[in-house]
Amino acid sequence: MANEKALSFLDTTFRAIYPQDHEYRQLAEARLNQLTMPHWALGDLMDLAIDLAGITRSMRPPVARKKVVVMVGDHGVAAEGVSNYPVEVTTQMVHSFVRGGAGINALARQAGAGVCVVDVGAKDDFTELVRDGKIIAKKIGRGTDNMVYGPAMTRTHAVMTVEAGIEVANQLAAEVDVFGTGDMGIGNTTPSAAIAAVFTGKKVAELTGRGTGIDDARLRHKIEVIEKALARNKPNVKDGLDVLAKVGGFEIGAIAGLVIGAAAHRKPVIIDGFIATAGAMIASSLEPFVRDYIICSHRSVEPGHGALLEKLQRRPLLDLNLRLGEGTGAVLSMHLVEAAVAVLTEVATFAEAGVAGPT
Amino acid sequence: MANEKALSFLDTTFRAIYPQDHEYRQLAEARLNQLTMPHWALGDLMDLAIDLAGITRSMRPPVARKKVVVMVGDHGVAAEGVSNYPVEVTTQMVHSFVRGGAGINALARQAGAGVCVVDVGAKDDFTELVRDGKIIAKKIGRGTDNMVYGPAMTRTHAVMTVEAGIEVANQLAAEVDVFGTGDMGIGNTTPSAAIAAVFTGKKVAELTGRGTGIDDARLRHKIEVIEKALARNKPNVKDGLDVLAKVGGFEIGAIAGLVIGAAAHRKPVIIDGFIATAGAMIASSLEPFVRDYIICSHRSVEPGHGALLEKLQRRPLLDLNLRLGEGTGAVLSMHLVEAAVAVLTEVATFAEAGVAGPT
Repeated sequence: MANEKALSFLDTTFRAIYPQDHEYRQLAEARLNQLTMPHWALGDLMDLAIDLAGITRSMRPPVARKKVVVMVGDHGVAAEGVSNYPVEVTTQMVHSFVRGGAGINALARQAGAGVCVVDVGAKDDFTELVRDGKIIAKKIGRGTDNMVYGPAMTRTHAVMTVEAGIEVANQLAAEVDVFGTGDMGIGNTTPSAAIAAVFTGKKVAELTGRGTGIDDARLRHKIEVIEKALARNKPNVKDGLDVLAKVGGFEIGAIAGLVIGAAAHRKPVIIDGFIATAGAMIASSLEPFVRDYIICSHRSVEPGHGALLEKLQRRPLLDLNLRLGEGTGAVLSMHLVEAAVAVLTEVATFAEAGVAGPT
Repeated sequence: MANEKALSFLDTTFRAIYPQDHEYRQLAEARLNQLTMPHWALGDLMDLAIDLAGITRSMRPPVARKKVVVMVGDHGVAAEGVSNYPVEVTTQMVHSFVRGGAGINALARQAGAGVCVVDVGAKDDFTELVRDGKIIAKKIGRGTDNMVYGPAMTRTHAVMTVEAGIEVANQLAAEVDVFGTGDMGIGNTTPSAAIAAVFTGKKVAELTGRGTGIDDARLRHKIEVIEKALARNKPNVKDGLDVLAKVGGFEIGAIAGLVIGAAAHRKPVIIDGFIATAGAMIASSLEPFVRDYIICSHRSVEPGHGALLEKLQRRPLLDLNLRLGEGTGAVLSMHLVEAAVAVLTEVATFAEAGVAGPT
């Protein structure tokens, strides 16, 4: 019963998602073609400006109010020793996010973006942080199950996880112009590589990276763990919820939901790195039109990330050898989104400026 | 006489330029190694943070006050028809910079950077703008001579042009933490490609691009023009002032001077695109230690730019298919410079945050 109601909520949301508006894209392109500069001389920023006009149905796309949503979840597969860090670090980092001392806090402040932390599936309940309103509680479970021995979560939980992300988008939409996606969860490059393997069809060894910085022996082990999980669960590439349930994670599903929710609200959503892109891939498999609303921020060091970006046919804005997650790449890109709008709205046309055009 | 005095000013400035401070680099690296994140997880931003500590001799590098200096000059070689735009556009764009409607104005505002326009060698005298203090007048000549028939300028003028850039840096240094370099001058990808050919030894055809967007026939002609200018002038790669005089430009020399001046003041200077990098190449040939102070902002569409970046052994921060100049790439990178400082100064260490390190 719960599942039917849940699916219905997803379906309702999917039905609110349309492609970018073609007319606003054309209006934006026409103006950009007339700016006092050689044709398309600001390259990718101009492509981004067209996207923003098409997403927001506006020639003055609102982008001032920015928020990065950090989805938090733990992973049963961490028990296999796929990370350099103990799972307690998920809890410790959430406290660090709330205190404002983590990488995402420093970079979000610099970008003028708010940080919102959502517990979707950490082992810890963060009772005090939830009571004090420091984080949003949307917990589906206390960490996923170990995908080596069976599905990471039930299909019902997969649906609920995506719903949780949509609910967060709905809750924040009135006060946010641009969403960024972040993640925290020790071990989460492992499910992300598994998701990349399912959707790209490439070999696990080509898609698996060192995550927090594991050595060669652990990397070989991590590849074996992912191969075992895929062989055990046989996720169905045609069914995004099946992939999420079998080899995903709570925070990955919630990121998928946030992307879907942002698209339903016609707001741009900036995708961070490997984990966030795995979430965006799940979202895109559930509702392909969401691809019109995502802006890929950067190409991370993780090899699976490039493969997922290619599958999503998205070229990222930055390539700075980042591999932190938390949403750091997303907030680093926010100024480029604002710069694209500045190009569209603040640069004079040849006619406005009285400048001679090309001969 | 004038020339001797001038050389002495250059030499005095060169003698004030030291490499980055090794001790501050080590202090910064030690702190970055202890931040609550996997080792070097913010990649290039962390490398940049080390550079900024080494440049400014500070663990809290000042970067809040940013200014892009747009050097303006005209080019005799424009008479050969190497651009899509008439030379009057240099004048028109300077007026647009002053009114605040150009690409650089929009992006500088978004970056929180000031824009300073300097006439080093435009055809126009901008009498009213100079009188009203809207631009800085450092004019060496009314456009260079056509380098197809002889040197673009005398050696004396080359020295004076570099001096002009140093003087601007000296004038602004007390109120600027981070310099950006910009350029305006119809035809200036032509001397920049010539400079790239001299310093890289590569073929002109490999280094010459479409500038403002010229077609195939004009591109072939532009390559011939550059080849003729190089054959006629035979610039000496061992002598940066000779290269600047024979195949350079007034704004290119002034950018070289700005880079030299910034280095003497131990301030980071963000290099924009192809023209600015040609200026930085001249600066580096005159005083190699300036390389420690330059931050390359982006890789432009112009093929010669990549070759110059390689020669300077600098990896740019952005790759967004830009080819506008004006300093637009430089100001787009300023937030990354500030982000690097935020990482160094605002992220907690494992000890400060009570987070478990790697096992």
